[in-house]
Order: sequence, then structure tokens, then C-alpha cells
Amino acid sequence: MKLATLRTDGRRTGRNGTTAALALGGDRYLPLPAADAGALLVADGWRALVQNAVAADAAAPESAVVAVPQSGLAPLLPAAGKVICCGLNYGDHIQEMGRELPAYPTLFAKYADTLTGPADTIQVHGSERVDWEAELAVVVGAELFRADEDEAQRGIAGFTVANDVSMRDWQNRTLQWFQGKAFDATTPLGPVLLTADEAEGDFEVRGYVNGELVQHGNTATLVFGPARLLSYISQFTVLRPGDLVLTGTPGGVGMGMVPPRFLQDGDVITTEIDGIGRLENRIRINTKE
Amino acid sequence: MKLATLRTDGRRTGRNGTTAALALGGDRYLPLPAADAGALLVADGWRALVQNAVAADAAAPESAVVAVPQSGLAPLLPAAGKVICCGLNYGDHIQEMGRELPAYPTLFAKYADTLTGPADTIQVHGSERVDWEAELAVVVGAELFRADEDEAQRGIAGFTVANDVSMRDWQNRTLQWFQGKAFDATTPLGPVLLTADEAEGDFEVRGYVNGELVQHGNTATLVFGPARLLSYISQFTVLRPGDLVLTGTPGGVGMGMVPPRFLQDGDVITTEIDGIGRLENRIRINTKE
Repeated sequence: MKLATLRTDGRRTGRNGTTAALALGGDRYLPLPAADAGALLVADGWRALVQNAVAADAAAPESAVVAVPQSGLAPLLPAAGKVICCGLNYGDHIQEMGRELPAYPTLFAKYADTLTGPADTIQVHGSERVDWEAELAVVVGAELFRADEDEAQRGIAGFTVANDVSMRDWQNRTLQWFQGKAFDATTPLGPVLLTADEAEGDFEVRGYVNGELVQHGNTATLVFGPARLLSYISQFTVLRPGDLVLTGTPGGVGMGMVPPRFLQDGDVITTEIDGIGRLENRIRINTKE
Repeated sequence: MKLATLRTDGRRTGRNGTTAALALGGDRYLPLPAADAGALLVADGWRALVQNAVAADAAAPESAVVAVPQSGLAPLLPAAGKVICCGLNYGDHIQEMGRELPAYPTLFAKYADTLTGPADTIQVHGSERVDWEAELAVVVGAELFRADEDEAQRGIAGFTVANDVSMRDWQNRTLQWFQGKAFDATTPLGPVLLTADEAEGDFEVRGYVNGELVQHGNTATLVFGPARLLSYISQFTVLRPGDLVLTGTPGGVGMGMVPPRFLQDGDVITTEIDGIGRLENRIRINTKE
């Protein structure tokens, strides 16, 4: 099944004014009794809860199904407790750059405030080097601590789409990337969670700028796949339902182009994974800090 | 005034089973109607709330004041939304190492799960290079977004003591430090929050291993002081009451010694700031992953 988080109060961002929903295809959604998709995953027996909502809706005289445009979707996990990102994870890209495959995943952390909705305009202040990073994101579905890969695999709730939009000038001010990665409301996430039971193998990840394909990778070439990443992270910190792990981006980011190419005010980035969905976000840039 | 977070249910860690309290000196605390010191700071007019609790206690036939040993203290902010750390921030240490003063603060993020209480045993699995980092920590008291230094200064709730215990082997596996800094329950925090109105200028920060002084710095030599750090961070992400910013560590960490010195199973680290208090934590190390 596919799950989403709908906005219910017209606010652009925030942890309130949302509801979890079952995505029925097109713009149709059945609201579910949880504040967002992450809160739903915390509930024991959440699958039964979804099934009950579907049965109740079928039996009711008036359907609760709503039509919601993509702009009415919130970031899938607006209150994610952990948003942990992996860098340098696509083997083909690493090898084409002439580097060795890494022995350990490069990890950095950010916060749920960084997330934004799948059709939101991304407002950036104070950066002249705004770049894109199309990524598969893994949603945690169970508490994992010092989990092996099998347990981690079973603990995956599903998959979604993210773009780890990066302010390269801030990212490269110091050795630590955090400040260039954690601008509020700059990482679009969604549109839906594809549950793990319906995921069929690997994913094609594509990134576009103004309709031009700039990134294309397949998660089969990840050095550290979803279960291995979750297992590794869980060796030092607990993962909980609704936590998010971004798996890294394939080649084709603007910083790597010759000459480097950065997003301009008004550009639109599209992030797409077959079988899950697409994000489409306009970038607005105010270069003054 | 000084605020603390007491354990009320005997559990070693966790976000539940705690209460905020006013520290009265020695081991005496007056419980306050908030789950922890961070939750108290979120309440409008929290100073009046404290005063009312003091007045109510004075008027009641039996005092609610409790005697609690330091082991009964939880990490001061067990549910901090953001725990943002600054590295390379003591000017005298940077200059003695022959480096240039940085133009920007080196920042990285971790999560509240990393925190532990001021007298807790710190259990480390899978590291052979456990190191200490005594630090002044700043507690945010207001919502700050794109705040200038004056606003950030007014938005400081107060100060506390932290030790950013670091697993150097994990920290140096990749370019990003996060994985060596975010082991659950390894960053002691507390014992109290000294409110900003009672802070008198700069702080002496000291770190000891088994009673031997190994670190000693004065926050007057911070390249980026508390208000400047909060202002800088707030340019890209909102800070909220109860968020935590660690200001970096002075010289004298084990990794910098010749030869390097790391903590051994059973060692005790003490972290002390005059006017706030001290943390005393035994280290237990299981080197197997």
C-alpha cells in the first residue's frame, strides 16, 4: 500500500494540521486516524488500522475519500525523530570518479525541520550555490538497536523519495557538511511511502532540473543498501518507527559538473523514483544572508 | 536560579519518568509541574511558574522538597529537539596548534538519545578509542530564526555542562564525525541549568580523568561565543526552547596527546564548570562490536 501525509489546515509546513492517509491513486486519499504517516507507523497493528478504515469507509453512506492535489501533501514524515543521511554511496559514481569503495558509510544527521512537501516552493536565503541530490529514502518501521541485517530488513516500513538539496557554499565552509544540509524546509520528501511488502527489488532514481535529466542511478549500485545502512546505524543509536534514512545520491549533481552548475531563482527540480512517485519543487533564492 | 531534571521512576534513561525541579543547593530539589527542564522552558511565563511553586511550597504544611543524589538526576534535557555541536572553537588551542582562526563555526548535529545523566555509567560497545571533550553547553530559551546576536543573547535560557564523549575510531572512519559522536547515552549533561541572569561572564571548563586534570579552558577564548553561535545556527534552522548547543572543547583531549591516550574500562571522567556543577561518569567499554 501507499501512505501519505495530508495537510488539513492550509499551512505550508509544520508538525500540526496534518493527517495520515491511504493513497488510493491519482489525487484520491482516505484519511487515517493518525497525525501523519510516521505517527501511524508507531501504532501497534497499523496495518489492521488501515484495513479497518477501508472497511468502515466502504460501509459508510458517504465516503471519507478526499481529492487532494500534490500541493496539499505535507512532507511525508513532518515529525521524524531522526533524519540520517548517507553520502558517497553509489558505487558506479564513486568508481567513475576513480575513488576506492568506502569501507564504512559516510553519515550525517539533520532534523525534521529540514523537510518540506513534495510540491512546495523551496525558499533559500543566503546561498549562491544551491545544488540537488535525488535520493531513495528508507522509512524505519520498527525499533532497531544493534540489529543485524536480517532484523534491519524486517524493520523497514517502506521507501519514499527525497531530494537532499544542499547549499554547497555553506556545506564547504568547514569540514562538517551539516550547515549546508540542514536549511529549514529545503529537503522535499514524499509524495508517498511505498510499503516494503510491495517494493520489488531495486529502484531507478532520477533527478531533473527544468525538465532536463541530470541524475539517473539504480539503487542496485548502492555500496550500502537499505538494510545494511539501518543495521550499521543501529549499532550506535536506536532507530524508531517513522525515522528516516536517506541513502545517498547518484552522479550528476551540479557541483560535479564542469563548470559547476547551481540552481537559479525560479528553477524547478523534479525527483522521481519509479513505483513510488515524484517530487516537483520550485526553487526561490534570496542570495542575501 | 538553577533547574534540574529528576528521575522519578528509577529508570536509567529515557524521556519518561522525569520531572523538572528547582535546585535548592546540596541534594535538595523542589519538583516543578513539567516533565523536564526543557518542557518547563517551553511554558510561557515559566519563571512565574517556578515562583508560584516556591510560594505554594512555603505555604503548605509539608514541604514537597526532596533529597536526591546526583545519580537520581536525568540528563538535563532528555527530549531536546536539537543537539547541535561546535568543534574547533577554543582560540588558544587552535593557535597553539598553529592553525588559523576559523571564519565559520564547524557544526555537527546529534540527537537527544546521545545524552545521559550527570552520574550515569557510560556503556560503550565496539570502540577502542573512547575520548573525552569537556564543554560548556548553551540552553535555548526562545524561538530563534534568523536572529541577530542581540536577539540570540536574549534567547539564551542559561548554561550547563556536557562532555561530548567521542569514539575516535568511528569518528575517523569517514569525513563526517556524526557516527563517532552519536552513540546513545554517552554524552553526560547537567547537573543543572544555570539561568542566564545569574551567569557572571565567562566560565572555567575543566576535564579530569581518574582525578587528573587533563583539560582546562576559559570560555573567554571561544572563537564563537554563545550568542554568536545561536545567531549563526538560526540563519539556517530554527532553534526552540530546550534545544541545546555545545560550544566545543578546549585543548587536552586524549587524541591530541603524544602518544594518544584513550579511556579504559573502569575509568572515571569528571567534567566541571565553576558556578554550574560537575559531571562524574564511569566508563565501561566492551570493545567488541
